[in-house]
Amino acid sequence: MTEPTPRPKKSVALSGIVAGNTALSAVGASGNALYYRGYDILDLAPVCDFEEIAYLLIYGKLPNANELSHYKQKLSQLRALPNDLIRVLECLPAASHPMDVLRTTVSVLGCVLPEKESQPLAGARDIADRLIASLGSALLYWYHYSHHGEIIDVQTDDDSIAEHFLHLLHQKKPIHEWTQALNVSMNLYAEHEFNASTFTSRVITGTGSDIYSAISGAIGALRGPKHGGANEVALEIQQRYDAADEATADIRTRLQNKDVIIGFGHPVYTVSDPRNAIIKETARHLSEQAQHHTLFQVAESIEQLLWQEKNMFPNLDWYAAVAYHRMGIPTSMFTPLFVMARTAGWAAHIIEQRQDGKIIRPTANYVGPEPREFIPIHAR
Amino acid sequence: MTEPTPRPKKSVALSGIVAGNTALSAVGASGNALYYRGYDILDLAPVCDFEEIAYLLIYGKLPNANELSHYKQKLSQLRALPNDLIRVLECLPAASHPMDVLRTTVSVLGCVLPEKESQPLAGARDIADRLIASLGSALLYWYHYSHHGEIIDVQTDDDSIAEHFLHLLHQKKPIHEWTQALNVSMNLYAEHEFNASTFTSRVITGTGSDIYSAISGAIGALRGPKHGGANEVALEIQQRYDAADEATADIRTRLQNKDVIIGFGHPVYTVSDPRNAIIKETARHLSEQAQHHTLFQVAESIEQLLWQEKNMFPNLDWYAAVAYHRMGIPTSMFTPLFVMARTAGWAAHIIEQRQDGKIIRPTANYVGPEPREFIPIHAR
Repeated sequence: MTEPTPRPKKSVALSGIVAGNTALSAVGASGNALYYRGYDILDLAPVCDFEEIAYLLIYGKLPNANELSHYKQKLSQLRALPNDLIRVLECLPAASHPMDVLRTTVSVLGCVLPEKESQPLAGARDIADRLIASLGSALLYWYHYSHHGEIIDVQTDDDSIAEHFLHLLHQKKPIHEWTQALNVSMNLYAEHEFNASTFTSRVITGTGSDIYSAISGAIGALRGPKHGGANEVALEIQQRYDAADEATADIRTRLQNKDVIIGFGHPVYTVSDPRNAIIKETARHLSEQAQHHTLFQVAESIEQLLWQEKNMFPNLDWYAAVAYHRMGIPTSMFTPLFVMARTAGWAAHIIEQRQDGKIIRPTANYVGPEPREFIPIHAR
Repeated sequence: MTEPTPRPKKSVALSGIVAGNTALSAVGASGNALYYRGYDILDLAPVCDFEEIAYLLIYGKLPNANELSHYKQKLSQLRALPNDLIRVLECLPAASHPMDVLRTTVSVLGCVLPEKESQPLAGARDIADRLIASLGSALLYWYHYSHHGEIIDVQTDDDSIAEHFLHLLHQKKPIHEWTQALNVSMNLYAEHEFNASTFTSRVITGTGSDIYSAISGAIGALRGPKHGGANEVALEIQQRYDAADEATADIRTRLQNKDVIIGFGHPVYTVSDPRNAIIKETARHLSEQAQHHTLFQVAESIEQLLWQEKNMFPNLDWYAAVAYHRMGIPTSMFTPLFVMARTAGWAAHIIEQRQDGKIIRPTANYVGPEPREFIPIHAR
């Protein structure tokens, strides 16, 4: 596979520096390609259930129909939450950010169901499965409890993680198109090489730490507005405008003022984000179906303007925001859905880093004071 | 200041690669030196209160007597725990690892007292102060509650963080020598350039995330046995033996079997760990005072053997384990004390990374399958 030409970016530390090996994904070859274990994301994302992608990443191969059925059965049995975790979720304020709730959920699971050192690979896979199966349960249990005082049943007969999430959120079975759309977006969010959150999980794993520590750390990294938090900001930008021409006029002014428009550009892709074409069609389809066109039109007009003016292309977050909003998902849950999907990629990287066995420990350029005399406190 | 000659180590990824700038510490110059903001650790560690070191790292200068007094007063007022956190701590099982309890504590504080984006520097310093003042409160509240069913009062009139910790742990005021010894060890643990946990906190911060995310991620990294977890393993090794000659004989056999002896060697120092000489004297003093010599003698005999046979020197963890054990600190709290000290360094690095403004995003060497044909599930 052709390697991308390293093009170090000034705003990115370690840009283009190889920090390790991976067999999980190849990003940015030819400037706009993404492969999961050799499969083109353009083939995988539109047709697979997210469970197929999780299985591919965590277990190393695409499941056949029988394997997928067993895997879905295993995951559905992992939707329940331990009692200690439920009690903790009931303590967290309604004003908490859902990302902080998820980070706490993973950390508490590390207290309640700690990893066994005797099974560094199979045990990690089981914990990964528990997390992708139950993070939605935890988030939505907390959400309904803290916001509406309601205790929901998180054990449902839903076929998939996507359906389970939408069912718990809206407290009714979602239409098929929504489940399908959520699957597509989760497939696209599942894995992306050494991005900052995945790299965080590998740095933590390199010390020999447990998978809960690695994933709660990764959630903390994904939370940032320069990373996963971008999809929240993308919707905020789109919702500022009631029409496409209003958006174009205002964004033009902002570009003249050198404002950064979140949701555009990417530290790795140079030509376009290959995931954009897929999520854009998903967003378009949901908008047409709902007869709500404005948000999509605003998003598309800004896309066209930034391409004309700046040669900048939207990344995955831009239209994911439109699609999620159309499904009635609260904005603060956009990045948590990213977490639920990326947990599959993080877990696979954690397993790779364990097999690699290295600690990750760069060095720093010292820019502080020269050696100086110590003065005891009574003489300061 | 002379920069260390980069000597990349095969077992360390990114070894010798500069990942950013720091003015906080210079490590490994001449193979065995450590400076905090230009001050030699050999001058600082034996005589300073930990609060002086925390102030130096977080606020940029050594405090004078008046500033130190005000700082200690501020910290003592931050010892109390929010009610929501207390309720969460009461949910965590007695079998939890204290590191998991601390990681959860920081994550919950991020839900209960979230960072305000409007104060990226002063706000981070206040949160850092709250954490170094109250992590001991949280850990020991959970410990007495879960292990003995006791509710302790975490607000005491103790002069320092070290005294407060020992007071809450043993439920009586510690002797001065113990407080002093804990201060020395915390001074030594406070800061160490781009080690794996600090680097974790900087990677998380690079995405624009909050300080709670960065520090809970760092705790997760420090937990690993190749990093902070080493001081627990060091004591386990030392406690295997009832006498120095027994230790020497067994370790000699283990070296022949190419076993790794935890507590020795360092990814940065090449000649010796400068912190060892100081903590060794502390451990010796506490052992003499308690008239318990065996553990120290075992530790010293292994030190001598590894130097003779392998040219390997003990790192800070080796004699910190002896000193902590002599003060009656449970082994599982060794790394949490490391956390309490290093939180000062982490916070200072988080502030530096915010000022720097870069995201940290290396790349990977792809070693997976070549592009391959996608087969839909019904045909697999």
